[in-house]
Amino acid sequence: MLSPKQLESLATLVDEKALRTDQESCLNYGRDWTRVHQPNPAAVVLPKSVEEVQAIVRWACAEQVALVPSGGRSGLSAGAVAANGELVLALDRLNEISDFDATDRTVRCGAGVVTAQLQEFAQAEGLFYPVDFASSGSSQIGGNIATNAGGIKVIRYGMTRDWVAGLKVVTGTGELLDLNRGLIKNNAGYDLRHLMIGSEGTLGIIVEATMRLEAEPAERAVMVLGTPDMASIMEVLRAFRDRVRLEAFEFFSEEALAKVVEHQDLTRPFATASHYYALLEFEKPDDVAEASAMECFEHCVDAGWVEDGVISQSLAQASALWRLREDISETISRWTPYKNDISTTVSRVPSLLTEVEGLVSDNYPDFEIIWFGHIGDGNVHLNILKPDAMPMEEFQTRCGSVSQGVFESVARHGGSISAEHGVGLLKKPYLGYSRSDSEINLMAQLKRVFDPAGIMNPGKILDA
Amino acid sequence: MLSPKQLESLATLVDEKALRTDQESCLNYGRDWTRVHQPNPAAVVLPKSVEEVQAIVRWACAEQVALVPSGGRSGLSAGAVAANGELVLALDRLNEISDFDATDRTVRCGAGVVTAQLQEFAQAEGLFYPVDFASSGSSQIGGNIATNAGGIKVIRYGMTRDWVAGLKVVTGTGELLDLNRGLIKNNAGYDLRHLMIGSEGTLGIIVEATMRLEAEPAERAVMVLGTPDMASIMEVLRAFRDRVRLEAFEFFSEEALAKVVEHQDLTRPFATASHYYALLEFEKPDDVAEASAMECFEHCVDAGWVEDGVISQSLAQASALWRLREDISETISRWTPYKNDISTTVSRVPSLLTEVEGLVSDNYPDFEIIWFGHIGDGNVHLNILKPDAMPMEEFQTRCGSVSQGVFESVARHGGSISAEHGVGLLKKPYLGYSRSDSEINLMAQLKRVFDPAGIMNPGKILDA
Repeated sequence: MLSPKQLESLATLVDEKALRTDQESCLNYGRDWTRVHQPNPAAVVLPKSVEEVQAIVRWACAEQVALVPSGGRSGLSAGAVAANGELVLALDRLNEISDFDATDRTVRCGAGVVTAQLQEFAQAEGLFYPVDFASSGSSQIGGNIATNAGGIKVIRYGMTRDWVAGLKVVTGTGELLDLNRGLIKNNAGYDLRHLMIGSEGTLGIIVEATMRLEAEPAERAVMVLGTPDMASIMEVLRAFRDRVRLEAFEFFSEEALAKVVEHQDLTRPFATASHYYALLEFEKPDDVAEASAMECFEHCVDAGWVEDGVISQSLAQASALWRLREDISETISRWTPYKNDISTTVSRVPSLLTEVEGLVSDNYPDFEIIWFGHIGDGNVHLNILKPDAMPMEEFQTRCGSVSQGVFESVARHGGSISAEHGVGLLKKPYLGYSRSDSEINLMAQLKRVFDPAGIMNPGKILDA
Repeated sequence: MLSPKQLESLATLVDEKALRTDQESCLNYGRDWTRVHQPNPAAVVLPKSVEEVQAIVRWACAEQVALVPSGGRSGLSAGAVAANGELVLALDRLNEISDFDATDRTVRCGAGVVTAQLQEFAQAEGLFYPVDFASSGSSQIGGNIATNAGGIKVIRYGMTRDWVAGLKVVTGTGELLDLNRGLIKNNAGYDLRHLMIGSEGTLGIIVEATMRLEAEPAERAVMVLGTPDMASIMEVLRAFRDRVRLEAFEFFSEEALAKVVEHQDLTRPFATASHYYALLEFEKPDDVAEASAMECFEHCVDAGWVEDGVISQSLAQASALWRLREDISETISRWTPYKNDISTTVSRVPSLLTEVEGLVSDNYPDFEIIWFGHIGDGNVHLNILKPDAMPMEEFQTRCGSVSQGVFESVARHGGSISAEHGVGLLKKPYLGYSRSDSEINLMAQLKRVFDPAGIMNPGKILDA
């Protein structure tokens, strides 16, 4: 915790509203969307400029005070949790959008710019910021970059990484790095920008980014298709990918659909119940594209990969179909699910799912599993629902041992224990299933290069 | 140089054909496409497996022998030159293509696979490897990744970086890192893959890569358009980019065109001579796309941005138009040009070009300048032709002082002193124009993490 003298010296670096020690601020700024750790920051500081961030970091470096950078705090791995008396450095006030350039299609964003704010800005310029996910209304660009956020359109547009043309970062010594400056081509030495992306605040604090924007896609249509098994979903993916421009290719299980329909007052997409459903969105610039999609649908039905299906005829219908997928997370939250965010290559997903399903049903037959995810990217979310009768502690313990088995299977499939949620505190014990000892050792050494005092989000990803 | 005892112990690690000390091998494997440094390697070793690469690196680490990794040696910055008695480790024999997966659209390539070999493999599978440049017939995938090679289709497909789904690298201690394993989504810790890409063999030796392939584009058409000035080219880029799917957007100057037409027995694209020409290629899936391009052309003529133009009506015509751009480099090679490979953001290119042209014509009126490059990416190649009467040494010295001025202008434009050629030995003195002292210092520290013995391509990018 901070001494009164430390608080006093910190206060001289910022304006009077910027330093907060009240309980509510500490609770609010000390946690993310995970609710596993008890928030316990020493204080919260809200700098209003890059220079103030640098001053705070230099101060923290001299005082050996641990910093936790904080964005929209919608993370799911406790990467932004301050549970050990750290000083939370929140980027909320660096929220300016500036320097839009129509030729380069880039725009400068303070780290605290909210994702939806950038999406709306792009739209007003007739352009498009395509990285999108459930927390777009609260997540911030700096946090998105620090966690390399993914979401529902990765199959077409990639991860946040792919939209960062320039990055300003304050390292653990308070130095400001101005990386890549919006260039498309720049082979002048190591690309530190990419090293910073996804480093979860452990190498430096992202203070500003130059983000790329894209032309708006044409009109889109949404299809939901019922399939008998995962292998069929893979065939459907291959068939559609070759004939239409996919914007999204998601999946969910019958169990997921049943829960959503029951609790969100939605109707099933069609009468037939299938084991799995694919939701796909594609660009429909003209009638040819739609005809092509319908032809492909018929081909999939003939081949036995699709049992039934529906296509949106309006924006309202498209939104309604998307809700079947997007409302799953909220729907199942009442069962306080144990969430995993695993990936492998797309081709190995069916095998991974079969293995994990077998593992859970053999060893934990009393657990209900809800599968959904970004199947077009090889990324699935495994949600285990807590049986109502089971005490939370027992559930967490048993899920912990499920995780071991799941991650062993992920490792056998060459996969990732965290496809898009990052490592933070929650996935740290399992990092060895996706990264070798050599890699973890190298990462720790890299951290010391950028953060010799060990003050940048210590204990996240790697042991402090 | 290596002692007889060292050569003897090295020989035990590989088969008998693998170690070469003859003059021809040393000359051939000791240089790249630059001809500035005198090649002088101690020996050349050609391992046939990843295990042999590891054994050689461990041996070099113990013996303190500097290694220069070697691919197709078509580099233009002397990144693969061995001028100081190094051991050249050539990847030629790691040239297997394997594990193609049609669902993932990925394929495993040994570092020594030649670019054209991968392009042909993709084509045979009905797919496409889109990174393309003049040296595709000799450059190797490992070298492409080590230098993050760009080329003529970056505007649509990005750099080599964007096609690397997995990377195996042997670090300076002989450890093998298996990075990302072909995953689309993987946020489990720092992305060391991206750090390795473009590090020019100074952090590790790339031994294998999992490369992404893409659906083949539809039929394409090529246009060449004459424009009065650079500002007009930018307007043309914006106009076309919004209406067609650009595969390439290149430019060259009238001086470049005149040289190519004169020396390659080609005809001018049309009678009108313009200051600059844009060459653009776009996908033409149907008549709508072509009509759209023609409409855009007329709009550009009406606006005064285009003075004349031509569109290909056949593959043969498309190839002939491409030669106007692609043959420039070879054509001007007889004037032993001093080459720069600079970039800025696309929007700042006209200003950078004006500044650099003014600088050269004011201070060096006797020099002839040939401009061409990848204008859609903000990357231009400045070629200064040696006046026939000027001795080589005087020309090099004077060009060196031109470079200072050019790079000062690049720095003022926030640009890069090496857009796609890398740093190697040739650009090392100028790195400070694109990277801050902090960044260069951090890079040196990163090198020590991966290469504590300082044996990995020492002296390239950074001082050894």
